[in-house]
This record gives sequence, structure tokens and C-alpha cells, in this order.
Amino acid sequence: MQSTAIIIAAGLGTRMKSALPKAAHKIAGQPMLAHLIRAAEQMFDRIAVVVGPDMPLLEQIAAPHDVAVQHERLGTAHATLQAEPFFGEGPVAVFYADNPLVSVETMRALQERLNAGDAGLVLLGMTPPDPAKYGRLVMDGAYLSRVVEYIDATDQERAIPFCNAGGMAARGADMRDWLARVGNNNAKNEYYLTDIVALARADGVNVAALDAPYDECLGVNSRAELAQAEAAFQARARARFMANGVTLQAPETVFFAADTQIGTDTIIGPHVVFGPGAKIAANVEIKAFSHLEGCVVHSGAIIGPYARLRPGADVGEDAHVGNFVELKSAKLGKGAKANHLTYLGDAEVGPATNIGAGTITCNYDGKAKHKTKIGAGAFIGSNSALVAPVSVGDGALIAAGSVITENVPENSLGLGRARQVVKPRKG
Amino acid sequence: MQSTAIIIAAGLGTRMKSALPKAAHKIAGQPMLAHLIRAAEQMFDRIAVVVGPDMPLLEQIAAPHDVAVQHERLGTAHATLQAEPFFGEGPVAVFYADNPLVSVETMRALQERLNAGDAGLVLLGMTPPDPAKYGRLVMDGAYLSRVVEYIDATDQERAIPFCNAGGMAARGADMRDWLARVGNNNAKNEYYLTDIVALARADGVNVAALDAPYDECLGVNSRAELAQAEAAFQARARARFMANGVTLQAPETVFFAADTQIGTDTIIGPHVVFGPGAKIAANVEIKAFSHLEGCVVHSGAIIGPYARLRPGADVGEDAHVGNFVELKSAKLGKGAKANHLTYLGDAEVGPATNIGAGTITCNYDGKAKHKTKIGAGAFIGSNSALVAPVSVGDGALIAAGSVITENVPENSLGLGRARQVVKPRKG
Amino acid sequence: MQSTAIIIAAGLGTRMKSALPKAAHKIAGQPMLAHLIRAAEQMFDRIAVVVGPDMPLLEQIAAPHDVAVQHERLGTAHATLQAEPFFGEGPVAVFYADNPLVSVETMRALQERLNAGDAGLVLLGMTPPDPAKYGRLVMDGAYLSRVVEYIDATDQERAIPFCNAGGMAARGADMRDWLARVGNNNAKNEYYLTDIVALARADGVNVAALDAPYDECLGVNSRAELAQAEAAFQARARARFMANGVTLQAPETVFFAADTQIGTDTIIGPHVVFGPGAKIAANVEIKAFSHLEGCVVHSGAIIGPYARLRPGADVGEDAHVGNFVELKSAKLGKGAKANHLTYLGDAEVGPATNIGAGTITCNYDGKAKHKTKIGAGAFIGSNSALVAPVSVGDGALIAAGSVITENVPENSLGLGRARQVVKPRKG
Repeated sequence: MQSTAIIIAAGLGTRMKSALPKAAHKIAGQPMLAHLIRAAEQMFDRIAVVVGPDMPLLEQIAAPHDVAVQHERLGTAHATLQAEPFFGEGPVAVFYADNPLVSVETMRALQERLNAGDAGLVLLGMTPPDPAKYGRLVMDGAYLSRVVEYIDATDQERAIPFCNAGGMAARGADMRDWLARVGNNNAKNEYYLTDIVALARADGVNVAALDAPYDECLGVNSRAELAQAEAAFQARARARFMANGVTLQAPETVFFAADTQIGTDTIIGPHVVFGPGAKIAANVEIKAFSHLEGCVVHSGAIIGPYARLRPGADVGEDAHVGNFVELKSAKLGKGAKANHLTYLGDAEVGPATNIGAGTITCNYDGKAKHKTKIGAGAFIGSNSALVAPVSVGDGALIAAGSVITENVPENSLGLGRARQVVKPRKG
Repeated sequence: MQSTAIIIAAGLGTRMKSALPKAAHKIAGQPMLAHLIRAAEQMFDRIAVVVGPDMPLLEQIAAPHDVAVQHERLGTAHATLQAEPFFGEGPVAVFYADNPLVSVETMRALQERLNAGDAGLVLLGMTPPDPAKYGRLVMDGAYLSRVVEYIDATDQERAIPFCNAGGMAARGADMRDWLARVGNNNAKNEYYLTDIVALARADGVNVAALDAPYDECLGVNSRAELAQAEAAFQARARARFMANGVTLQAPETVFFAADTQIGTDTIIGPHVVFGPGAKIAANVEIKAFSHLEGCVVHSGAIIGPYARLRPGADVGEDAHVGNFVELKSAKLGKGAKANHLTYLGDAEVGPATNIGAGTITCNYDGKAKHKTKIGAGAFIGSNSALVAPVSVGDGALIAAGSVITENVPENSLGLGRARQVVKPRKG
Repeated sequence: MQSTAIIIAAGLGTRMKSALPKAAHKIAGQPMLAHLIRAAEQMFDRIAVVVGPDMPLLEQIAAPHDVAVQHERLGTAHATLQAEPFFGEGPVAVFYADNPLVSVETMRALQERLNAGDAGLVLLGMTPPDPAKYGRLVMDGAYLSRVVEYIDATDQERAIPFCNAGGMAARGADMRDWLARVGNNNAKNEYYLTDIVALARADGVNVAALDAPYDECLGVNSRAELAQAEAAFQARARARFMANGVTLQAPETVFFAADTQIGTDTIIGPHVVFGPGAKIAANVEIKAFSHLEGCVVHSGAIIGPYARLRPGADVGEDAHVGNFVELKSAKLGKGAKANHLTYLGDAEVGPATNIGAGTITCNYDGKAKHKTKIGAGAFIGSNSALVAPVSVGDGALIAAGSVITENVPENSLGLGRARQVVKPRKG
């Protein structure tokens, strides 16, 4: 039976003070909505996202998944109901895009709890260090008796540490049925999703509640809370990498993307930032102040300090990328070195080739990008400019300070600089 | 009636282990003394700073405000008395330069409390998380009964959480009168400002005490306390920017100056440092490892990573300043790009112009600085040197690797490089 | 009488998930084992390190000290016994390489406590904020009664805050005697060093226990604990520098090596990293994002932001090294400046010389490194390449964009660039 995840992303997020819809704000370089989608993709057959009107950016983030638009802001049950056409008969789980860190493991636990069969509705709960003004989950033995909002809670209820984290799951038919019966007879005249707990209980259905890790349940309603969720994400990522055998000299200064991959015995210095799409092998050393995204780094390579690897950078085994060096769509062969003040864009560099300080590949002529190919065992003298399209053969040598505009065959010397003169200094 | 702020900055700060007077040490790039002066300028008609002998640096920081010199170190009341010629009849408030973070709001509250009329002296109090050895404020109903030093306090008094934060305000005539009557009959034979509390009480005058935020009252007597005050300043700045709609991906790694301005929906990555004088518009993206001071960045611009904007940098709408790029007294037009390993100093770059990787404006000839002007829609090939004074017209193209020493007219090609030769490689 | 330190470094460190032996993992850029060796060298006449089989890397780190190999993993007493040939008659102290932060002061206290004469065995104890599952030290008046493992402890014993930190000292003859008598009649059939406490007590020998600072006693068994030990090391280093009169604007973002030296009134901005071997004088300013190792920086110099000083860099008084500038085996004379996008390797620069933006010393020809010598008061125009070996005399001027391949005499102008031409732009 088809399982479905509904993600409510219709909130404007007024407290964010932003022109962007709240769910488009990013954690670890990825929109909050995308975090939940990536997790849900691993657990659910179908995903539907409920957005507000005029949120094309969210529809883009949601693609290729289904999107429903909530045209009027009539509450969370009303929002969920907009996605009703996408419900199957299997589990329907509802998540909120402003609780973006719910993990696959928690989604799985939610579904498994429902599939156990004894409970017809399962809520996501949590036990925060400071329960503050969260709604409390009042248990009756193994099952949930009711959800009480903080404002309505007695002192005794406020002493309950178990709180409502905001997600839930039920079978499709039940969810449809209860949603249809939720009323709006309350102060704001809104339809609240939490009200289906009472409907289920009235139907004699057991309601269960999971105790999910609090750091997965952080809510984001302001930029400060966004920063807290980012910190929770990073803390989890750092702990995971260290547990897997990666050394982080100063974990609190290293920032990962959601999809960063790093092999064992790789050592990462202080102040390193990963953008999306970095795959780092084992036994790599990444020194301070490096910035890596969309790149592959092979075993034994040394990166940084101050190395910038941009999308398409591919650093070979035992290769070195040093300070103030940028690689973009550039492949460095095994043992090749580009150690100082260099820009390699749309370039291929053969194994054991040395790229001198201040080398620039001139890959853009104002209209199109062109390729630079450098062979194996070549030597590019310092402060050279390689005007693409151009190739330098295996074992070729480029004299320092040259501007290279034509191909240099293998084992040749390419030279493109003026002859020096000396005059008396004036003035 | 003229209101006056007296700032006591005469302390040597032995525990700082510094050749500088204590009040000259900086928080957020601004001397501690200047922090109080900037706040006091918004609330008081006149400001007078009391310095010790031979502290010309502090007199410089205090300018154009009045300065009094305390030639002998005879205590805080004695220090305040040196500024007596600058008292008016209105409120006279005393602050200490080593409590540098007292805010305008707190200064205003102090003055308003005094102006309420029922109290003739108002002390600045605070409620620190750990009151430790601070002097305690013993209240008698709504008014202060006395200040008791920790060392003289009973256990009961030590249990009082309300502490002396070190500033106060009275009307000029009262302040004059009480100061004149403070004695030095104590262990160190010093004249203590706090003693005027007892004098006021003896005169039957009500003394009030404000409860100021603790993070404004941090005292700085060592480099470690200087770092704590800096941390308090930065925490407040980060919270303020986030509340105003700025995203800080990792707030704890971003450092602001006292005068940093940032618009909403601007996104700031990890590890970014602002020096004095940075004005950042809305919708700007500032990537990791960027350093900005004395600059203006317009809406839609993308800065960094590793961008350095120095005083006089002006980055136009939607312009890009990329990695290892420094701008000094340089204006980038709308949509212009300088993305790699570039130095632009004393330069003007027109809209939609592309500055290639490794471009250097040679603005200094060893004697004077000269200007480089580049028009709109121009293209500067990579690794070019532009020897100022020089201009490149609209739509002109500079060939990669050129040294440009003469003006290049619009829509022309400027070329200044040797022709390449290829020889067999020797050895 | 010869004192001996035995350092047990035989552990594999399975939880590190590493191909390296545990004791080779680094804190502040120095292997854990080396931290203990450097401290022990200041207190003990002889040092012997016990390693496991096939740990040549540890033998290398231990050199020139003695090494014993524990071929079978039979427990800590067995490990210590492997080093028995190196015991003298004086104190024999045992430390564990995975408690790498034990200080000289603590080592001294341990030895002095033993030398006091009343106790024949002294244990290293600690009082952790959370004693968790550490073994407890059960005292009987001034002396240790016994060490009880957490698992064997009664509730009353678990309430003891004083814990076993894992080092100890005894006189050589006693240590020999007790080690020979330790048995392996326990669950794992191992010989435990802690068992000598009971043997000493049974012999009627008093056993003392020191209360060492907890941050010196942190144990490292995983990468997360390695990061915690690094953090403890850095926190101590930061506090020490601040106490000595160094300003750290954001101490939590600055990382030191074990041997960093810094003079008073030096100011260090946020995000600065020191590798091994940096000696910084007084009154230096080191701006954000700088990385310094193996270098000497003299008084009044200004470094960074984004300056990289590599081994052999020597920055003279009042000299400036600016952004995106790398120095390697390069000496800058008094007041010299290299402020932008420059690489100086194997170079000597005279006083008051100005190195223009984008200057590169081409020190490597693919086979060997060569020297560049630049005199006093010279001016190197921007974007120049100096092809070593080459010298530029005092007061000489190099035109911007030149490639300099031959010596330039003093007060001369060196010029090596093509003449510019202007053509109509095509296309």
C-alpha cells in the first residue's frame, strides 16, 4: 500500500522578516523544505508538498514531487486537506517544513509504530531540555490521552516533560475521515491538525506518541532559530564524521553540507567550509581556511590552507592544492601540484605536473569558456598565463612569466615574454 | 539645563600588562573609551573625559570632547572632581571607561529616573548570573539604603543578587556638593565616588538604583575580560542583525564592528569579519572568509568567499567580487565582475565589465597613487597589469597577459605581450 | 639518582577507526606521545616509551629516547614491565600516551610528593566535573586506601568525587618489586598496573594521591575525545597568552601550536591559526584569517589579513605582509612591504623596499630552488616575475609587469615587458 508524506510548507514566516517563504531558507546550504524531502524520499512512496499561494520558489524546490496550494490560511488541518488527493490507503505522515531536521530514522520509527497495528494514529513527541511553552502530551499508560496547549494546561500538566513535536501519521482512510471532521470552533476560527487526536480517541482508536530526539524537532520561526537549527545540524554532522574516523581539529569551526562525504583518517584543520557536493576520500589532509564544493578529492591529497575547490574540481591521488588556489572544472592528475596563487578553470593537468605560482588559465574570452590541457610531467613556470583553448604536451616546460597562446608540443619549451632591458633609474 | 557625562578613563590597567592605557584597548575595533563616548553623544549635551597623566592617546580618542587630567591617583571621587568645571546644573552622569558597553538606552533610563524627581541620586545596578565579589546594593523599599562592599558584607547581604555596576547620576549642584564632602578616611586613603550614596542619604535625599542588563555592565581589567566584553558585544550585535532579518549561517563565527550596517535578506556565511565602516544593502550574499571594512555593497551583490573589501570599495548592484580579490578605493559598476586573484586599487570599473583572473591595477609608482578607469561592458583579459594612470574605454578588450601603459579607446583591443616561441626543451 | 618516565603508548585505539596507532594522533599539530615526551624531558633524566609491535611511527616520535616493545597485549603492568631495563633507583613515573596533556608542573608535583618520603607510591588523581564511570580513589585520611573500579563500587564509593587519572610514581626498586608480583587472576587475565596499590598497602607502604587539574587528565579514545583534548589544550593556551598581555579579539577562533611564542601588546584578530614554530614579538598586529608557522615576526610588524607565513619566513620590524601573500624561506627587512597577492620564496628583501601586488619569485626551475635577493629601498612594480637566481640592487626599480631574468644593479630600472599596441576590437 502506498505510503505518503505530506509536508506543510505554506507558512509565510513573518518573524523571518524576509521576502522569501520560510521553507526556502537554508540550513547547510539546502532549503529547509529540501531537508525533509530528501529524508522522506528514503521512506515514502509519494511526497506531496502544501505551499501557500504565489510561492513558485517552493514549487521548484518540491519538484518533481506533487504540490498542493493552500489558497486561504485556515489552519494546519486545512493545509493537510489540500493534499488529500495524494493520500493512498497506506500510512499518511504529515511533517512541517519549519521542523526541517526530522531524520529518516524518525520517519521510519513513525511508520513502524503505525504499522504495529495497535495504534491508529502516531504523534511525534519530544522531551526538550526546557519544555517552555510547547504543547504537552498527556499519556494514559502506553497511549496518548490528549494534547494540551501550554496556555490551557494546568500546573500539573505543565510539569509534564513530554511535548508535541508537530508531526503525525495515520492510515490514509482514517486521516481522510478525521480531517473531514475537524472543526474551526475556536478563537482564530482555524482548523487544527492536532484536533484529530480527540477525534481518534472519540472513535475508540489508540493514539501512540514517539519520543524523537529533540535536536531533530527544532522549530524555525526566526533567523535566530534558523541559526540554532543550523548549529544542531552541524553538531550532528561533526559527531558523525568523528565517529567514522575523521579528525576534526576544531569541530566547532568546520561547516558541512547535507551531502558531504569524507573517508577515514582524513584530517581537517580549523575553519573549513564545505558547500554542496564534496566527496573527500580517506587519508586526505584539508588545511585551515579551505572551501570545498562540488568536488572530488582523492586519497593522499593535501588541500590548503586557503584552497578553493569549486564544482568540477577533481584532485588526484597525492596531488597538492595550496594557498590562494582556485580550481573550477579542473582535474589535477596524480601527484600534480598547484601550490600558490593560481586559477585553474576548465583545465586538465596530467600526473606529476607542477603548476608554478601565479599561473592563470585564461578560460573565458568574454563569450565562451575554453579548455586548457596540460600533459604529464610538465612544468608551468610561475606567473604564466595560458590562453585557452591551448594545450601543453607531456614533459613540456613553460618559461616563467609567459603568455601562452599556441599549443606547446611534448618535451618542448614554450616561451612568451619580452626580453629584459636595464636602464638608469630616473627621478 | 545642560546634561553632562563624565567618563573616568584614568586607570592604568596594570592587569592588562600593556603599554597602552586601559581605555584605549579595543572592542569591535573601537577603543573602550570611544564606545562610551559614542553612546553618550546621543544622550548628553556635554562630555568630559578624565584621563591620567601622559595619556595623549586617550585625549586623541576623546576629542573633540573636553578632557580633564587626574594628576594623582586618589580615587574615583577625586577623578570625578577633576571634571567639575564641566558640570552644568542639569544631570551629571558618571561612567567608567572600563565598563565600556553601557548602552544609550541605559544612559537614557538613568537620566529619566533622575528627572522623575523623587530621587536625587541614581545608581547603575545589575543582577549578574554569579554576583561573586561585586558590591551589593541594599534596598529599603523602592530606594537604595546603602552600597556594601563584598568584603564588608554579612552573609545575609552577600545573598543579595542586586549589585553595584559602577555608574551614577545626580544633578550638577548636588554632585558638586557631595564630591566636595567625600573623605579619604579608609585603608587606601582614597576618595571613593560610591561614598556619595551615604552623603545623599544623610542629607535625606532618596537614592534610586536601576537594574541594567548585565552584559552592558561587564568590567574590563584584563585581556581575558576584554575578550569577554568583546564576546558580549558580538552576541548582542548578532542577535540584533538576526532579529532584523539578516541570515547568519554560523553567528558565532561572524564579527561585527560597532557601526556595521546590513539590510534584510542579506545572507552571511561562516567566518566573516567586518571592520569599521561597512554598509551592506539588502539581498546581498557574503560568503565565507570575507573581510569587509569602509565599504559600500549594493543590493544583489555577491561577495567572496575570500573577498577583501577595504576602505573606499563600492560594489554595485548585482556585481560579484570573488576569491582572493582585494578592492581599495575601487568602484565596481552594476553587474561588473572581479572574481579571481585580483587587486583593484584607486579604480573605477563600469557596469557589466568583466575583470579577468589575476588582474592587477598598478596604482602606486613608489611616490604617488594613480587612477585606473575602465568603462562599461569592457573585458580585461586574465593576468593583465593596468599601469595607472590609465583608462580603458567602454567595450574595450584587453588581451590576456598584457601590460597596459597607455589608454585604450572604446571598442578597441589593447595588447601588450610578447609573441610566443617554442623551442626544444633542454636538459 | 636517575629519575625515569615510562610512557605507555602501546594501545591500538580501535575506537579511533584509524590506521595510525593512537598515540600518533595529533593535538595542536603535535602527536599525543610527543606532548608527554616534551613535558617529561623537563623533569626526568631518562624517558622510555612502550609501544606495540609494528609501530615504527611511534618509535620515530619517541627518538632519541628509549623504546620498549610490548609484543603481547597483557595489560598495563605488563606494558610497564617491558621498560624495566630502563628503571634506575630514583623515581619511576608511569604515564599513558592517551592522557597526553599532563603538564610538567603535575609531573613535578608527582615527583616531589614521592621525594617527600612518607609515601612509597603516588597516584595521579583528579576531580572531574562529572566523575561518571571513572575508578574512584578511596582515601583513608591523608593516604589512599584503595582504587575501586566504578563497576565494583558501592553507591557510597560512587559518590566519591576523587577519581583515578591514570599515572603514578614509585622508587625504581619498589616499582620493580611490585610489578613482578602483579597477577592476572581476573576476568580478562590481564596484568593491571593499578594492582600495585594493593601490593604497596599490603607491604605497609603509604600510598599518596595528587589531585591534578582535570583538563590535564582528559583521556583520548575516540576522535571526539581527541577534539575535546585539543579544545582543552587551546583553552589553556589562550588563557596563558591573555594573562601575559596578548589581545585575542575572539580567543575561541584562534588556534595555537604547542610551541607558539607571542610578546606582549601583540593583537590577534579573529580566525588565526598557528602551526609549529612561530615566534611573534611584542607589538605585532596579526589580522584575521592569517596562518603562521615556522616563522619569526619582529616588533611593530603588521600581518594579514590572509597572510601565510611558512617555515623560514622572517618579517622585520614594522614590515607589512598583506592579503593573499605567502612567504617561505623569505626575509623582509625593516619597514618592507608585500601587501597583495604575492609569493616570496627563497628570497631576501631589504629594508623599506616595496613589493608590488602580484609579485612572484620564480624560485623553482623544476629541479632546484634558487634565491632572489632584493636590496634596500627598491621598488618592485606590480605583477612582476623575478626568475631566480636573480638580484635587484638597492634603490632599483622594476617596471610593472616585467619578467626579470638578469640582475638589476642598484639605482637602475629593470624592464621586461612587451610594448603595448592598440587595434580595433573584432567580433
